[in-house]
Amino acid sequence: MDAIALLGGPKEQWPIDIKKKLLKAKEKNHLIFTSDRGSLFLLEMGIIPDIAVGDFDSLTASELNLIENKVKDIRYSHPVKNLTDSELLFRTALEDYHISHLKIYGATGGRLDHMLVNILTFVNFPLSEYCNNIEFIDIQNKIKLFNPGVYDLYEKNDYNYLGIGNLTQIENLSIKGAKYYLSNYCSKFPKMFSSNEFLENKKITISLELGIVIVIYCKDIDKFSNLS
Amino acid sequence: MDAIALLGGPKEQWPIDIKKKLLKAKEKNHLIFTSDRGSLFLLEMGIIPDIAVGDFDSLTASELNLIENKVKDIRYSHPVKNLTDSELLFRTALEDYHISHLKIYGATGGRLDHMLVNILTFVNFPLSEYCNNIEFIDIQNKIKLFNPGVYDLYEKNDYNYLGIGNLTQIENLSIKGAKYYLSNYCSKFPKMFSSNEFLENKKITISLELGIVIVIYCKDIDKFSNLS
Repeated sequence: MDAIALLGGPKEQWPIDIKKKLLKAKEKNHLIFTSDRGSLFLLEMGIIPDIAVGDFDSLTASELNLIENKVKDIRYSHPVKNLTDSELLFRTALEDYHISHLKIYGATGGRLDHMLVNILTFVNFPLSEYCNNIEFIDIQNKIKLFNPGVYDLYEKNDYNYLGIGNLTQIENLSIKGAKYYLSNYCSKFPKMFSSNEFLENKKITISLELGIVIVIYCKDIDKFSNLS
Repeated sequence: MDAIALLGGPKEQWPIDIKKKLLKAKEKNHLIFTSDRGSLFLLEMGIIPDIAVGDFDSLTASELNLIENKVKDIRYSHPVKNLTDSELLFRTALEDYHISHLKIYGATGGRLDHMLVNILTFVNFPLSEYCNNIEFIDIQNKIKLFNPGVYDLYEKNDYNYLGIGNLTQIENLSIKGAKYYLSNYCSKFPKMFSSNEFLENKKITISLELGIVIVIYCKDIDKFSNLS
């Protein structure tokens, strides 16, 4: 089953058409997960999440009351805890609800400790097992993670650049069919190869034998790419 | 010698008082490095960088002409290259100019492949040797990296949270004096422990025996932390 997760990261980093994406997901009966402040963001948009996770410590009593009256499945975490709210959300979605493809919004921008928790939790036990099932999406990046295997990547509209790197020790990472190719790269250290591009056949094949690879589809945004 | 580097990341992520910081650095005769579009951002602020690095492929001919007339040391990179502009800047600053403390702005936000290149280049040869000499700074995060050793961290104004994690395999990472402590943590996989806090004595001591640790001082920003 497909699902969407909205975390509490800054709205400025969300895709511009996020409300449309959420409504479309609702129509298809995809589940909507959210953590902490994300719950209120959704209610403001008139969208009731299916599952809300968090300690809700940044909400007022009346805001929490609103969540409790509207949302069917609420998972309370504790302010002093081993799991962050987003980790608890990911485990609920992937382990309890067996979501096969989770699109995650609100995971980037703002506090970088939060962003790194969100991404790096998928290179550690137990969520590393599910790293192929998730996708982080913001206003100009789509991030996918890959366990060992062979994968074909296809061009996406507007995303002109591709960053491919390893978040862990890596063995035999190869990139074929791209502007910049790589053959059997091995390293103990995480590294990002940025600004790669698709060629005419619009397909890039990556393969790896050990480790976890991160692939970031990137686009420049007008306001950032021009000086005027 | 101290220096500042301004990379081409989105202005929205720069500290609000960046111009003041740059002018203060100029007064103290600290060097100012910049890459690619950062050169123009600086000239717009009326600040002439000392060293400009890049392929300058995003500039017009007249903009490039302006840079070439104003900046003393220009390092041209090639559009098809092994080193990114920011890597070339870092190597120029740390290897050629022997900068002992480099504050790096414009390295975060926007395209995440760029951000990860900027950070992960310091866990790889040859720049890993210099990881203790640099600091990434944006509007709500200060990022420092640490090679094996024992380090005291002190509270910084407004930065209420601390993320501490490992970017590489790690041996015996300990965190003492913090709200959440850690004893001799060992792992093959990068991980971030977010939202830690200083206690009353306002000092946290971290130590590690192998690997590279990332410390992120974070603050919430009003527009992000409130819903209204």
